[in-house]
Amino acid sequence: MALSNGLEVQKEILHAEIKSFFDSAPPLKNSDDISGKLEGFVKKNSTPSESGGARRVVCVTSGGTTVPLEQRCVRYIDNFSSGHRGAASTEYFLKAGYAVIFLYRRGTCQPYCRSLPADPLLECFEYTDDSNINVCQSHSEAVRNAITRSHAAVAGGLLLKLPFTTIFEYLQMLQMIAFSIRSLGPHAILYLAAAVSDFYVPWKSMAEHKIQSGSGPLDMRLVQVPKMLLVLRKDWAPMAFCISFKLETDSKILLEKADMALKKYKVHMIVANELSTRKEEVVVVRRNEKISVRRNQSLGVDDVEKPLIDLIVGRHSAYLENPDL
Amino acid sequence: MALSNGLEVQKEILHAEIKSFFDSAPPLKNSDDISGKLEGFVKKNSTPSESGGARRVVCVTSGGTTVPLEQRCVRYIDNFSSGHRGAASTEYFLKAGYAVIFLYRRGTCQPYCRSLPADPLLECFEYTDDSNINVCQSHSEAVRNAITRSHAAVAGGLLLKLPFTTIFEYLQMLQMIAFSIRSLGPHAILYLAAAVSDFYVPWKSMAEHKIQSGSGPLDMRLVQVPKMLLVLRKDWAPMAFCISFKLETDSKILLEKADMALKKYKVHMIVANELSTRKEEVVVVRRNEKISVRRNQSLGVDDVEKPLIDLIVGRHSAYLENPDL
Repeated sequence: MALSNGLEVQKEILHAEIKSFFDSAPPLKNSDDISGKLEGFVKKNSTPSESGGARRVVCVTSGGTTVPLEQRCVRYIDNFSSGHRGAASTEYFLKAGYAVIFLYRRGTCQPYCRSLPADPLLECFEYTDDSNINVCQSHSEAVRNAITRSHAAVAGGLLLKLPFTTIFEYLQMLQMIAFSIRSLGPHAILYLAAAVSDFYVPWKSMAEHKIQSGSGPLDMRLVQVPKMLLVLRKDWAPMAFCISFKLETDSKILLEKADMALKKYKVHMIVANELSTRKEEVVVVRRNEKISVRRNQSLGVDDVEKPLIDLIVGRHSAYLENPDL
Repeated sequence: MALSNGLEVQKEILHAEIKSFFDSAPPLKNSDDISGKLEGFVKKNSTPSESGGARRVVCVTSGGTTVPLEQRCVRYIDNFSSGHRGAASTEYFLKAGYAVIFLYRRGTCQPYCRSLPADPLLECFEYTDDSNINVCQSHSEAVRNAITRSHAAVAGGLLLKLPFTTIFEYLQMLQMIAFSIRSLGPHAILYLAAAVSDFYVPWKSMAEHKIQSGSGPLDMRLVQVPKMLLVLRKDWAPMAFCISFKLETDSKILLEKADMALKKYKVHMIVANELSTRKEEVVVVRRNEKISVRRNQSLGVDDVEKPLIDLIVGRHSAYLENPDL
């Protein structure tokens, strides 16, 4: 009884923190546009296909969120993430027949664009003497794949791209997406690969103007971003198959932290990865299993995302059979 | 006497701080490659042209520097800057006959690419049914200009692009550039438009691993980046025409801060700009003049950088006539 009361109090505190975060966040500028797009996308993809079953839908989050340090933002804290994992995963989910809501940080890697150079326009193209545009031979396949596959997925209504920059935008948009995929029940996956800030400066306590560099050091106090994962899991989209990521730079604490997160947030799966080896190996952590997933070039497996998404699709199928397992 | 001793002591402290900054900074990975490129570029452009005079050379810095918060970097502080000003200025300097060393933040706006959409590859191109690549009509001129002009400037040896990310990379590269353009004397300009971090975490006091988000807030202490502008001006490239930028969000303190910076760092010109109006107006602040420079679309002046570079080229010509003025 005492324990359950303690949990209730904790839950109330968390809900109050989350409310305060959203109340104080600068409102999304284009929330009507986003709502409309989400509604259309979910509606289209929840209509049973000719083969009978409803299409599965996954929300892939990708890239890092920023934390502004000033209201008129000159400086901000950023989280390192190229968006490579999210882009690759999106490709494999699409290939497996899922419709994908790709919630990505502006400027990060896009699906089907992973093998392009840093500045495709200036590095892949040239004009011939007779003024025709030409794709350099070495990049021609990459450019063709990027453009045709990306356009086909978007035009076919299977890929909805939504960009964010700040932690405030990200969490508001994630909440909108979670609410909109609720109706899909267990057919939806939340695949939370974005690098989300743990600490932030509440909008109202933020300096209005640029912080001055007078004399002496700068002391900053950041507060924790309320942990929304539990609420996302339990309240926002309680039937969705929920996968969260854990990134550490210290391999010694990685699996322990993943286990803790699994228990604390009640997600269905944690993908644990270490910064220096994240492109080679991840560990899928579930209640009763830990599976190492590796890239294996000798077997023609070019990236770790392919076997990872294969595994997830299998576990999601099992979950659809029996969501209580 | 006491005053001059006081200044000497301050100067010694600054030199010690700068030495400590560079000693503790992670060394550039490709410094030999950068040195080689700079040497070739300066050599080529310091050979007198057929018309007699040596070519003028400008180093344009562009975009924001990052400050890593962890050695194995997951989080960092960033400075907002699209790189639009630096890219536009580079175009006008090239048009005025200057050779340009473009020291830019990876991923920011490139010269001749300002009018392109955010993701040119996916937004400007399509494949026709017979598998030929096609530039969408609405972007065809922008794409053609971006590719042909950019390639021509680089191929002609008039544009050298050098990318940076961290404050450590930026300041080491800026020093290398300043040393390499010394030989050009007053023919060189330093046009420092990059948004450079004022505060940083010294490499050696930085957390090795990802900062843990346990319980409670995160307190951070950042120390000031040593003000290298005075040393750049006086020691690194003492004859170069030196232009620094001052950005504020509060217009009330902008000109006062610009005046202070002019006196403190002994640069030849400060370009003062306010965040919200920076695309419309800047104020050129010199010892004996303050000139407001404005964009004026009705006169066919599409951006503020065109009149700004016109003004600078004129002042640089006067400086070449008489560097003591």
